[in-house]
Amino acid sequence: MKARVTVTLKNGVLDPQGKAIEGALRSLGVEGVDSVRQGKMFEVELATSDPERAKTLLKEACERLLANTVVENYSIELL
Amino acid sequence: MKARVTVTLKNGVLDPQGKAIEGALRSLGVEGVDSVRQGKMFEVELATSDPERAKTLLKEACERLLANTVVENYSIELL
Repeated sequence: MKARVTVTLKNGVLDPQGKAIEGALRSLGVEGVDSVRQGKMFEVELATSDPERAKTLLKEACERLLANTVVENYSIELL
Repeated sequence: MKARVTVTLKNGVLDPQGKAIEGALRSLGVEGVDSVRQGKMFEVELATSDPERAKTLLKEACERLLANTVVENYSIELL
């Protein structure tokens, strides 16, 4: 089964990459963007077809590798 | 209004970062992950509240800065 994991910075954590994108959009003349925050997205193909097992597996993957839970949140979405 | 833009590699484009994550998960003992592809995600706060205007703006931002449309697809989701 397929799943999508998104990892975003927690509120209050500075996002220099997002700030750089805001600045770049302004220099390109794209007006009307108030703020940008960048995150990561992972499309994962799993061997299991059991949703519970899939969630447990992805939670472990996030906690141990995909997200730095000190400064990042993650969300898991089964497709 | 808020929007989420996701940028993913097109099918057939090699994703070494995704492959590295697959390998790392295996070394960590997380079994059952068949494949991983990494993408980017942008949370954008827009000045406008008109959905049509927002889509046009984000499309322009994607085409000109956020995505390399030769090798990447993007999708825009208004929240």
